[in-house]
Amino acid sequence: MAVTFLEKLRAAQRRNQSFLCVGLDPDPAQLQGRHLPSFLHAIIEETLDLVCAYKPNLAFFEALGPGGMNALIESLAPIPEEIPVIADAKRGDIGNTAVFYAKALFEQYDFDAATVNPWGGEEAVRPFLDYADKGVFVWCRGSNLSSADIQEQTLADGRKVFELVAELTRQWNVHGNAGLVAGAPYPEEIARVRQICPDMPLLIPGVGAQAGDLAASVKAALDADRGGIIINSSRQVLYASKGSDFARAARRVAQELRDQINRERESFGK
Amino acid sequence: MAVTFLEKLRAAQRRNQSFLCVGLDPDPAQLQGRHLPSFLHAIIEETLDLVCAYKPNLAFFEALGPGGMNALIESLAPIPEEIPVIADAKRGDIGNTAVFYAKALFEQYDFDAATVNPWGGEEAVRPFLDYADKGVFVWCRGSNLSSADIQEQTLADGRKVFELVAELTRQWNVHGNAGLVAGAPYPEEIARVRQICPDMPLLIPGVGAQAGDLAASVKAALDADRGGIIINSSRQVLYASKGSDFARAARRVAQELRDQINRERESFGK
Repeated sequence: MAVTFLEKLRAAQRRNQSFLCVGLDPDPAQLQGRHLPSFLHAIIEETLDLVCAYKPNLAFFEALGPGGMNALIESLAPIPEEIPVIADAKRGDIGNTAVFYAKALFEQYDFDAATVNPWGGEEAVRPFLDYADKGVFVWCRGSNLSSADIQEQTLADGRKVFELVAELTRQWNVHGNAGLVAGAPYPEEIARVRQICPDMPLLIPGVGAQAGDLAASVKAALDADRGGIIINSSRQVLYASKGSDFARAARRVAQELRDQINRERESFGK
Repeated sequence: MAVTFLEKLRAAQRRNQSFLCVGLDPDPAQLQGRHLPSFLHAIIEETLDLVCAYKPNLAFFEALGPGGMNALIESLAPIPEEIPVIADAKRGDIGNTAVFYAKALFEQYDFDAATVNPWGGEEAVRPFLDYADKGVFVWCRGSNLSSADIQEQTLADGRKVFELVAELTRQWNVHGNAGLVAGAPYPEEIARVRQICPDMPLLIPGVGAQAGDLAASVKAALDADRGGIIINSSRQVLYASKGSDFARAARRVAQELRDQINRERESFGK
């Protein structure tokens, strides 16, 4: 039987002693004229012993035009089979359409996991969850300010909309392959999500320059085994230096982040 | 100055006396082995005097793999410049990412309009709206049953979540290029959306076999000038016949739908 996403993730976390995910969101304006796949090859080669996953963001490849998905495939080539790749695609549509989005991400591109958008309800998410060996991260609480426009609204029964989504995801999770996305800038909301879904992996984007954010969000997100987290950093790692030392600089930042996350884990509950 | 989406749409509506949009959602399992772009060419050639717009659904092309977007471009080739093309993509992500999704759809592929997913709030939608000559349809109330999971929830202030989204879209619409998606099976919700946004174009998917649905949803959606609607049919037109007469059958169904919509418009308010 094939290795599931969760098994692969946990093995990578153990092997690299890491809960850090590096987000691959290559903005051409930041690449100083460098060839995009070569830039990512250098980043990946310098960080693959430091991460538990990579998370390419499809928007940045789609923006390259019809060749974008080939550029993505080329960019991911140096990632070893043992490190899971999470497609950050935030797809979400009616059931009939979601089936095709899931087919694209999980069959055509064979990603180990994907992020999905729950706005269309169960039918939007179910076709992804039906791939029981793949991971499905439901976008629950964004890392951006305006995610509050809908997600932070209070329902008539007192719950926040993002809390409803965490509860729905728990119900939908019949194969045990669901996770949730909750943004690092909002540790209180992360804690609430963790309370609703004690065992689900949480993908935490939006780790910024502030160490306080990282500490608070790691502590809020950890499960009872001091695990269950995937802390994503994209820009901070990718653009650690504008010079020719960009890949070494990325390694330095990734190592600092990994070690900082581990320090927070070790002090958790003490 | 370039023609805006709305100008193009209204001209096509007048010229073809049509508020019908044909959705291009080609499911390979339904094509009886036909070449996908050739199938769509035949559909388009038989319907281009009957529609106000075409709406390709990107999921069906992405599911073809890395060549999918080239297949999409090839498929759309027979659409004359005067008929607007709406990319049904339901993209939605944090601002930094939404910028790249908008760039992909509006710059790389030059679609006239796109559907977007509002779950991430204003930052998810704003980068699309900033293309003032493009149309942006915010997914407000899905045509699917489980859209109710979130969209039909009641907020503490008594509003439904989809009503909040209609109100937010009205606020965000500073360039006058926003529209809303509201599903045909829910005419009461369409009426509420029309009440909140009296002047916005409404894109109505989910027109099924039942004529009652069509009549009720058209009446609920019309604006004060008996316009402001785009009624989408996908499967009913594309798969009107499994035989070699599929394109003529598609024409027949499209003509019936167009005429039925116009009859509902004529009787409106009388």
